Amino acid sequence: MSFRTSTLQALFEHLAGILDDVVLEGDGGLEIHGINGLREAGPGELSFLSNPRYGGDLAETSAGAVIVPHDALQPANGASLIRTGVPYLALASALSFLADTEALEAGVHPGAHVHPEAELAAGVTVMAGGYVGAGTVVGGGSVIYPGTVVMGRCRIGAEVLLYPGVVVREGCVLGDRVILHPNVCIGGDGFGFAQHEGRHIKIPQVGNVIIEDDVEIGACSCVDRATLGSTVIGRGSKIDDLVMIGHGGKVGAHTLIVAQSGMAGSAELEEGVVLGARAGVLGHLTVGAGSKLYSRAHVTKSLPPGSVVSGNPARPHAKQLKHEALLGKMEALMARVAELEREVAALKE
Amino acid sequence: MSFRTSTLQALFEHLAGILDDVVLEGDGGLEIHGINGLREAGPGELSFLSNPRYGGDLAETSAGAVIVPHDALQPANGASLIRTGVPYLALASALSFLADTEALEAGVHPGAHVHPEAELAAGVTVMAGGYVGAGTVVGGGSVIYPGTVVMGRCRIGAEVLLYPGVVVREGCVLGDRVILHPNVCIGGDGFGFAQHEGRHIKIPQVGNVIIEDDVEIGACSCVDRATLGSTVIGRGSKIDDLVMIGHGGKVGAHTLIVAQSGMAGSAELEEGVVLGARAGVLGHLTVGAGSKLYSRAHVTKSLPPGSVVSGNPARPHAKQLKHEALLGKMEALMARVAELEREVAALKE
Amino acid sequence: MSFRTSTLQALFEHLAGILDDVVLEGDGGLEIHGINGLREAGPGELSFLSNPRYGGDLAETSAGAVIVPHDALQPANGASLIRTGVPYLALASALSFLADTEALEAGVHPGAHVHPEAELAAGVTVMAGGYVGAGTVVGGGSVIYPGTVVMGRCRIGAEVLLYPGVVVREGCVLGDRVILHPNVCIGGDGFGFAQHEGRHIKIPQVGNVIIEDDVEIGACSCVDRATLGSTVIGRGSKIDDLVMIGHGGKVGAHTLIVAQSGMAGSAELEEGVVLGARAGVLGHLTVGAGSKLYSRAHVTKSLPPGSVVSGNPARPHAKQLKHEALLGKMEALMARVAELEREVAALKE
Repeated sequence: MSFRTSTLQALFEHLAGILDDVVLEGDGGLEIHGINGLREAGPGELSFLSNPRYGGDLAETSAGAVIVPHDALQPANGASLIRTGVPYLALASALSFLADTEALEAGVHPGAHVHPEAELAAGVTVMAGGYVGAGTVVGGGSVIYPGTVVMGRCRIGAEVLLYPGVVVREGCVLGDRVILHPNVCIGGDGFGFAQHEGRHIKIPQVGNVIIEDDVEIGACSCVDRATLGSTVIGRGSKIDDLVMIGHGGKVGAHTLIVAQSGMAGSAELEEGVVLGARAGVLGHLTVGAGSKLYSRAHVTKSLPPGSVVSGNPARPHAKQLKHEALLGKMEALMARVAELEREVAALKE
Repeated sequence: MSFRTSTLQALFEHLAGILDDVVLEGDGGLEIHGINGLREAGPGELSFLSNPRYGGDLAETSAGAVIVPHDALQPANGASLIRTGVPYLALASALSFLADTEALEAGVHPGAHVHPEAELAAGVTVMAGGYVGAGTVVGGGSVIYPGTVVMGRCRIGAEVLLYPGVVVREGCVLGDRVILHPNVCIGGDGFGFAQHEGRHIKIPQVGNVIIEDDVEIGACSCVDRATLGSTVIGRGSKIDDLVMIGHGGKVGAHTLIVAQSGMAGSAELEEGVVLGARAGVLGHLTVGAGSKLYSRAHVTKSLPPGSVVSGNPARPHAKQLKHEALLGKMEALMARVAELEREVAALKE
Repeated sequence: MSFRTSTLQALFEHLAGILDDVVLEGDGGLEIHGINGLREAGPGELSFLSNPRYGGDLAETSAGAVIVPHDALQPANGASLIRTGVPYLALASALSFLADTEALEAGVHPGAHVHPEAELAAGVTVMAGGYVGAGTVVGGGSVIYPGTVVMGRCRIGAEVLLYPGVVVREGCVLGDRVILHPNVCIGGDGFGFAQHEGRHIKIPQVGNVIIEDDVEIGACSCVDRATLGSTVIGRGSKIDDLVMIGHGGKVGAHTLIVAQSGMAGSAELEEGVVLGARAGVLGHLTVGAGSKLYSRAHVTKSLPPGSVVSGNPARPHAKQLKHEALLGKMEALMARVAELEREVAALKE
């Protein structure tokens, strides 16, 4: 929403320090006041083209400067261009460079509730109404927003952001640079009950949750604590809103889990798996490394590495598409069978 | 749960001031102490019939008075009747008239956390444990419940209700009479990452969320902030619990979005769209004005105005029903083909 | 995560006091320091075998002692065994016996917000940042965690656990030993609107929610208040994370509702129903006692007791499986019809 001002040259130099292949074409002295979409950006703003289907918007943009792929055409308004093979990545860096990040009031606010036996490193911020329990350790530069509760005996890494309303229950572990969005719940009890004479007897959930470095989890998502041992979210994984990770689940490194997906207890995603929206994995199954689940895929058997599946029950996506196509031919097939019946009847006479 | 007492006449006059077509049949002097279902209501209570399939309950009701359609039959107990063409709407008005709304303790509770640079209009209530950040402006008559967090630089309209546990992140805008139910999250970061060498690089989400007048959002629903610009929920739209609106989404005016539905990033619903429970719309698609998605419809292509779709992938509902019917005939078809094979074999001999 | 130490004999005697059929084989003097999975447990730890498919793990375990079914084979390491016909139930009891439960600081923390007109029984804990409204009554031994909000006029039973971030809105009733996990929302407004000239007019939701004894509800789940009367969750029912129970719903006793499931308004589950993950029931329907819904079953018609259904729309599971199998034969069927067409053409010549 709010940006600081920079010359295009200064921005270019920042990007050139991160990316090998950036090229500036145009007026380095241009003052950039913000970043906006191709349709919305004005002469003092930077925009970007990542998806080639928006090429038409590039042609007609009013942006003063645009981050574009190497082969993009010059827009009609003669905008300055920053060319790169990775425009979306360049945008990420440009946003970090230009966004005017809010200066938080560091330290522990008098309205925060930090237990005397909690241990906060230098530079930790606990805002009004934030809670840190006994025996919990929080690393330097981490921020606990208002209304966020970290119960006792947790270990929270450095540079962690726990947005408002987050709950981290007892004994959980978060790595460095973890980001939990509002109302995320880490370490709620797993759903474990022994059936006995029609009653459900609670299995105490004495495990915890371990979230490794650089994980980000979206609003209102839940990662349940293990019955025994740990539920684990591997480093670099990114989880969207309203996702449910069951007790004892193992999520490998660098996975992507899109909104409203879920994994039942003791399921495992190996490294680099992608779950589309509302995908689901039943309990005790393994999804092999690098697999991709389309939206609403419902995995009922373990999948080998590199699987690409969709549907319920999930099957190879190509097969699923064929099934759907066959359904479209059903009506014609019924007509053909009726015609055959007529012809055979005629032949028999 | 608790109602004030009114004569039926006074209630009737209140309704007559709002609705053109109400007619009172019976005893205006009857004292009404509450509102209840047709089966539960007693002689001192009002009930209602809206759905004709509950006509049998009307016949046998013990209610003292009933709001009914113009053509409803008189119940056996001789209850007084308020007739109208819009009984459900009349019920809404009767409930507003009779419900004994809780008197809140107005003003800022000493246990609230209101930043000195926040700006509260006259008549704003911030309950104990509520939080309002720097630079945020709150309009008259709005209520911030305990445990609710409004971060800095937000604009909150008048007569807004933010129930407990709501989070509104920095820079978001809420119109007048907006109602957010418990644990709703507005303005969490969108799910935006650039892929680079198997890693997911965060795209800073510097946009915001704009929620227009008279919007209501159900418990634990999430509206993510845009990467750039705004995610927008149009005026008068009503969103149920556990719904996810992705970053940059545009929801038109007067839509209805039933529980556990979701819209991926940059999707758009035009005015008056209805999403059944667990419906989903993939990213960057548009659902035309007045379209209706049945429960679990999964929209994979943009839809023209007035579409009525169901299934996964979503297709016209009539076609979906036909597909399902065809499946039911598959077994018979296989038997017919087997019979044809026998007959053809016989003919060939 | 943390356990107290016990001899195997003492643990065995505890279990024998609860379960009729436990048998100890081995060294009662063994000191048990914790409980762990068959693969993870060491010589000073207890483990368990419940699911026979992990028999291989039993054979190779390093655990000092294992809870096993009566017919389990002795592991190679000669571990002591506790035999029982209900090993999972025995595990539940062993966990309760050995888990080192956190001693909470009892009483009302000075940073809690308890309304002077609230009524707390002896032994109630309200932690810093917890909120209890006017006229609410809380039974003995109940715990209100930080950031949890119980609004006014509620009745909360004894030995209730309301984990952080829970919201219970006005006038709701919770029985004894209810457990609500973080960010659960009880009593948010139901999704009720009267349609009028393209606008959605709010029906005030003046009912409440009643949660009976021994109910447990998972993180971020929502139970909406009734328009009139009560939404009811029957005693002993267990609800997982991110579940939505619509207004006026009735959930019978001893049901199990797995994560991300939902029930629309005024739907009813009779006693002992099981909903798999992401199952759904449309409004005003009844699911008969003891019915089982597979994951993603979408119930569009009321079901008689003892139903076992899957699919969308939900149908008897056996029929659903047959449908799926028929789809797999579609391609062969099309080939057979093409062959018949060739043969009939040849016959006609």
